[in-house]
Amino acid sequence: MSAIDQGPRIRKIPEGDDRERLTCPDCGYIAYENPKVVAGAVVSVEGQILMCLRAIEPRKGFWTLPAGFLELHETPEEGARREAWEEARARIAIDALLGVYSIPRISQVQLIYRATLAEPGFSAGPESAEVRLFAWDDIPWAELAFPSVRWALDEYRARLGQAGFPPGVNPPGAAGDRF
Amino acid sequence: MSAIDQGPRIRKIPEGDDRERLTCPDCGYIAYENPKVVAGAVVSVEGQILMCLRAIEPRKGFWTLPAGFLELHETPEEGARREAWEEARARIAIDALLGVYSIPRISQVQLIYRATLAEPGFSAGPESAEVRLFAWDDIPWAELAFPSVRWALDEYRARLGQAGFPPGVNPPGAAGDRF
Repeated sequence: MSAIDQGPRIRKIPEGDDRERLTCPDCGYIAYENPKVVAGAVVSVEGQILMCLRAIEPRKGFWTLPAGFLELHETPEEGARREAWEEARARIAIDALLGVYSIPRISQVQLIYRATLAEPGFSAGPESAEVRLFAWDDIPWAELAFPSVRWALDEYRARLGQAGFPPGVNPPGAAGDRF
Repeated sequence: MSAIDQGPRIRKIPEGDDRERLTCPDCGYIAYENPKVVAGAVVSVEGQILMCLRAIEPRKGFWTLPAGFLELHETPEEGARREAWEEARARIAIDALLGVYSIPRISQVQLIYRATLAEPGFSAGPESAEVRLFAWDDIPWAELAFPSVRWALDEYRARLGQAGFPPGVNPPGAAGDRF
């Protein structure tokens, strides 16, 4: 069976609900779809930023921060630490929430933290072709994977040396799905 | 068919994945389960707090803040405004992110905002038996629905008159699933 003729694929309003849900005509299952949480971090090492060259789609070949979908039973901080390990083989220490970004088109809420290395060393995990540190002026701005990478980097820069600040949000009018 | 013999119900590790997912043996569908986002608000009116007496389970008969699951394509702020309308027929204006709370046992990430009424008036929506304003000392502390309601109220109180503060998080060691 292909992806489009299996699983929940018929949109209808279940009894007692007030909006359409994806239901499976074969087994009756209702797939309640909800936004997903992405957790990640701007990790700095002596003023340089840890970035990952994506080895997988979407945006293969573009640079990103270690970040990914929160898993069940994780806190966002745990998710950010796990993703830093999975994508950059980095053990990180989180010190602040840098940003809460929304990408409503794809139903993502991103929680991006500020962190440093908790222990020395990093290397490319399976989803990264390369992991390296960039000085601010060397960041490959034209080759960033997602708009929210830019937003989090800008927030990091704006909050250098600060503690106790509110997290940043999307720039005015920016929905985050396009550059 | 009953709930346990339909839909994704077999846990196995899909090819190329690294953890168990819920799969449907009838149609092959893989249900990727992810944490859910709850958006809500501490809404104050001349120093009093808007609270809702729950008319539905869980915690029917206990007091809560207007809050609920974020829907697809919503930002957290939009979700908090929608929930305030659905549960308390209140139009709210958000001014700050009060807290980011995790309830890992039930895989929730809660984003609770500080808000005021954008226009006068409120009343019980279908999920609320009663909606009313409480002065701080009159809040029914022994009858709160969830631990995170207390956390958000405490954060509200601690941040009275303040702007530009970082959101609160779970109290040390508190996982949020029990009082």
